[in-house]
Amino acid sequence: MPSEFTITRSVEFSETDMAGIMHYSNFFRYMEAAEHAFFRSLGLSIADPRGEPRLGWPRVHASCDYHRPLRFEDRVEIRLKVVEKRSKALTYEFTFRKADDAAGTDVARGRLTVVCVAHHPDGTMRATPIPEAIASLIQVDA
Amino acid sequence: MPSEFTITRSVEFSETDMAGIMHYSNFFRYMEAAEHAFFRSLGLSIADPRGEPRLGWPRVHASCDYHRPLRFEDRVEIRLKVVEKRSKALTYEFTFRKADDAAGTDVARGRLTVVCVAHHPDGTMRATPIPEAIASLIQVDA
Amino acid sequence: MPSEFTITRSVEFSETDMAGIMHYSNFFRYMEAAEHAFFRSLGLSIADPRGEPRLGWPRVHASCDYHRPLRFEDRVEIRLKVVEKRSKALTYEFTFRKADDAAGTDVARGRLTVVCVAHHPDGTMRATPIPEAIASLIQVDA
Amino acid sequence: MPSEFTITRSVEFSETDMAGIMHYSNFFRYMEAAEHAFFRSLGLSIADPRGEPRLGWPRVHASCDYHRPLRFEDRVEIRLKVVEKRSKALTYEFTFRKADDAAGTDVARGRLTVVCVAHHPDGTMRATPIPEAIASLIQVDA
Repeated sequence: MPSEFTITRSVEFSETDMAGIMHYSNFFRYMEAAEHAFFRSLGLSIADPRGEPRLGWPRVHASCDYHRPLRFEDRVEIRLKVVEKRSKALTYEFTFRKADDAAGTDVARGRLTVVCVAHHPDGTMRATPIPEAIASLIQVDA
Repeated sequence: MPSEFTITRSVEFSETDMAGIMHYSNFFRYMEAAEHAFFRSLGLSIADPRGEPRLGWPRVHASCDYHRPLRFEDRVEIRLKVVEKRSKALTYEFTFRKADDAAGTDVARGRLTVVCVAHHPDGTMRATPIPEAIASLIQVDA
Repeated sequence: MPSEFTITRSVEFSETDMAGIMHYSNFFRYMEAAEHAFFRSLGLSIADPRGEPRLGWPRVHASCDYHRPLRFEDRVEIRLKVVEKRSKALTYEFTFRKADDAAGTDVARGRLTVVCVAHHPDGTMRATPIPEAIASLIQVDA
Repeated sequence: MPSEFTITRSVEFSETDMAGIMHYSNFFRYMEAAEHAFFRSLGLSIADPRGEPRLGWPRVHASCDYHRPLRFEDRVEIRLKVVEKRSKALTYEFTFRKADDAAGTDVARGRLTVVCVAHHPDGTMRATPIPEAIASLIQVDA
C-alpha cells in the first residue's frame, strides 16, 4: 500500500551522546531516511537529477515526541504514513518502535511536512505543484 | 533577564546538505546549543557532574517551523525564551534570525520541552522535580 | 575468516554537503560502523556493559585517502581488514568501493588504530591488554 | 602571519558520544571549521559563488592522532598551519589544545590535504591550479 512504508535501522555509536542514548536530533535523520526509502520504493528519488527544473523537498515543519530512549545497537523500526497530500505539500507521520519489542511500545512519534519546490537557474527555489507522475503514486491513509 | 537568551552562530560547511542549505536536523542542534549556553549564563551546566544523583534533561518534545533556508556562512541569532516552567519540565521557544537582517525576518521557530531526570546507579533515569537552586534562576516570559 | 569483514551502506541525504558529495568526515563514521559490525559478527559488542571494568576502544589514529567522491544514494561496500594486533591495540584498514562498480575501483582507503581501555569508577580510562576472549577471535591478515 | 591561524570552540553536547567524550569524527569537522575561518581571515570564502568556473576544495587526505579526550564544554584551540603549498594543493597541519591548559599539552594533531578543483557545468570537477589571487595570500611555514 503506497501510503505506508517501514525501514529498520540499528543505532550507531556516533549517533549516541554522553547521556548514553541516541541524540534527539538523529530521530529527524531517521525520519528523512524513511522518507527517502519510501520514494525509492515507488521508483522515485528525492533527488532526481533529470527533472527540468530540478525538484527539491524542503521541510516546512518537523516535530517529534519522545517516549523512550534509544541506545547503541537498538534495532528500530520507523514506520512512515502519508497523512496529508496537498497540491504542493505532503505530511508524513512516523512511528518509532524497537524491532524486537513484541508489545510494540512506541519509542517516539514524529511528523514532517515537506513542500515540493523547483530549483531555478538563478539559485532561488519556489513552491510548485507536485508532478502528477509523483502525486498519483502516493495515497493518503484515511 | 533570565528568561531570554541569545547566541549567534555561523553555518558551517559540514552542516549544509546537497540542496545547498543547512540540513533541517541541525536547527535542533542549534536550539540545544542555545539551551546549554543559557544554562552556563546562569552559572549552571546541563551536565553537572557534582549532583547526587546526577541530573539529565532529556527532550520529550521538539518541533521546528522553517520559513527560510540558511546557507553556508550565514550568521544566525538564536533567541531562547522560557515559555513554561513546571515542577519537572521546562519549555523553550526559539527564534532564528539572520544576524545582519535589519528587517528581523524569522528564518525558523522552534520549541523544546525538556524533563529533569535523575540518573540512578542502575542505569535507569526517572523524572524528578527541578532542584530549587536551578528553578529559582529561571523566569517564565509572561 | 575473522580478519576481514564487509558491510554495505547507502549514502544518505544528511551525509552530503553543499558540494553535492558525502562530507569527508562521514567516511570515519562508516569505518566505525564497519568496525562495530565486525565485532557483532564475532558475537561481541564494542560496548559490552557486562565487563568489569567496562572496556572501551578509543581511537589513537585515524586517516583516510579519498580518490573519488560518493554521492547521495550511492551504495558503498566498506571492507575492513585487521592489519595489526598488539597486546593493547588493533589496527584496521578499510577499503571503500561502490557496490555496483564491476571494475572495483577504490573510492577511498582508511585506517584506524584503536586502543583497549578500561573505564575506572573514578571516570578515568587506562590502556589495558585486550582480553584473551576477544583477542583470540581476531586474526591478522598477513 | 598568513600561514598560521587559530580558532577556539567549545565542545557541544551533540558532539559527544556514549563514551562521554567528543566523537573522533568531529575533530575533522573542527579542522575544516578552522580552514574555513582561515580563508575568511584572508578575505576569501571557501565557497565563493562568483568564480567562473566555481572552485571547490575537496580533501584527498585527512588524518588525526588523538592523545587525550575532549569532553562536553571543554574549550579547545585549533591552530592551523599551512605546511605545503603546491600548484593545485594545500596541506594544513592542526594542533588541538585545551584553551585553559597553561602547560599547552596537545590533545590531538591532524592533517588535511585539499585540492583546488573547478566545478564544470556538466557536474564534473577537475583539479585546477590555485588562482594566483588566492595562492599569493597563503604562506608556507618553513
